[in-house]
Amino acid sequence: MNYNQLFEQIKRKQSFLCVGLDADITKIPQFLLDEEDPIFEFNKRIIDATAQYTVAYKPNTAFYEAQGVAGWHSLEKTINYINLIYEDIFVIADAKRGDIGNTSKMYAQAFFDHFDCDAVTVAPYMGSDSVLPFLEFKNKWVVLLALTSNQSSHDFQLQNIENTDNNLFETVLKKSKEWGDKENMMYVVGATKAEYLKQIRKIIPDNFLLVPGVGAQGGSLQEVAKYGINESCGLLVNSSRGIIYANTTADFDKEAALKAREMHLEMKEILKSNKLI
Amino acid sequence: MNYNQLFEQIKRKQSFLCVGLDADITKIPQFLLDEEDPIFEFNKRIIDATAQYTVAYKPNTAFYEAQGVAGWHSLEKTINYINLIYEDIFVIADAKRGDIGNTSKMYAQAFFDHFDCDAVTVAPYMGSDSVLPFLEFKNKWVVLLALTSNQSSHDFQLQNIENTDNNLFETVLKKSKEWGDKENMMYVVGATKAEYLKQIRKIIPDNFLLVPGVGAQGGSLQEVAKYGINESCGLLVNSSRGIIYANTTADFDKEAALKAREMHLEMKEILKSNKLI
Repeated sequence: MNYNQLFEQIKRKQSFLCVGLDADITKIPQFLLDEEDPIFEFNKRIIDATAQYTVAYKPNTAFYEAQGVAGWHSLEKTINYINLIYEDIFVIADAKRGDIGNTSKMYAQAFFDHFDCDAVTVAPYMGSDSVLPFLEFKNKWVVLLALTSNQSSHDFQLQNIENTDNNLFETVLKKSKEWGDKENMMYVVGATKAEYLKQIRKIIPDNFLLVPGVGAQGGSLQEVAKYGINESCGLLVNSSRGIIYANTTADFDKEAALKAREMHLEMKEILKSNKLI
Repeated sequence: MNYNQLFEQIKRKQSFLCVGLDADITKIPQFLLDEEDPIFEFNKRIIDATAQYTVAYKPNTAFYEAQGVAGWHSLEKTINYINLIYEDIFVIADAKRGDIGNTSKMYAQAFFDHFDCDAVTVAPYMGSDSVLPFLEFKNKWVVLLALTSNQSSHDFQLQNIENTDNNLFETVLKKSKEWGDKENMMYVVGATKAEYLKQIRKIIPDNFLLVPGVGAQGGSLQEVAKYGINESCGLLVNSSRGIIYANTTADFDKEAALKAREMHLEMKEILKSNKLI
């Protein structure tokens, strides 16, 4: 999917919601454990219930890997299901990968060729040659970690770099602009760090931002939109736990749909007030 | 495995060799493709041939993920095989993971509980709460990326941090000393960056270093040992392509054994001249 197609979907659905599929076997409704593949069944019902309000799904690989081969199988079925039934929805593998060049190439093959995801999250610590192999795939995206939503993101990301006016995450933004463009690079910026969005938009006005941390982690959608929105929306705001674990009864999917709809309605107002729809 | 057990194994085998199991389906001997699980069969033969010269194996997850569920299955079988047949050998999942706390916990479960690896490589960009969940497992290890072997490691790792005498990787070393100790933290330092080992040893004199980049990437074992060795050896030097792809005929495992033996002999001399054996 390319930049314009993503923006078109946002306008059509009046939403820039990304639902995080962090399916944890200990947190899903217990009656699903009778299913042959409880994790896939959980995801399938969440997806069917929320797809109309959602422009992207973001399975985090950690939750699948914790179940070993079975988990990896659930992940594959989940991504295949989205691509088959909801082909216009953007799929982000939240994998935070990154390695030396020939190894990053294998990760790119895993997530773009094998799984056919649209995007993968990538950690910047190892520099350009750990990221470039992902950018060689047409209409596929790197979502580079910039300023993450967790508390200890300040440990390194907010350290100032000598002889520049930039801290580390700003240096990552500036340097990575040489590697790709708005058609193949997005950035992770935590909703809990909304106060930085103004300066981030000065460096990368056009790129999409993947914004986790609304909901369970305490970030505000209004704050994120105020400083982060651009002419093509430029935002994918993620909610995981707040939607998928809204309820653990047989009606969990209906409750998830209600939570996703709430976010869609708030996003619709934001898109309207910014004259994007 | 704990620090002393690892050192004891090094003395017993007169080796600090780690063999990287980067099994690429396009590079393994083609006659293995007739096997039910060519990747596992390849690994098994490499392991059986090299185990006597080797103190650690390091499968890089990228090569397995590129094959999807089948690859993950080969990885599981490979790790189980090492743990069953060569239980005193240290197993490092080279996964370069790292995420917010509750997610890193899932990765730790994946590699320590499910796969029963001894160690996992972790990227530091997200700070302490992305690393600490891995350190809660007794006798398990984080191998934190510090100064990597790839060319673009300088993009960020060598940036100087304002108002300190440290660059980013030194800041990572100093900060992470507060999170763990020599019993549960190792660091990745590329052999191609041996000139930094002197200053690295000033910051972390006791920790083990996992050193990739000898061989195909051009690093020198002698240089690494000269500046990196400590009283407990403190080094695991990795070779992947130089050993596992030394030959692609039916004798590939014998050739791998010869290459591993060459490194063992060179390491034996180094251990002797440092009076460690």
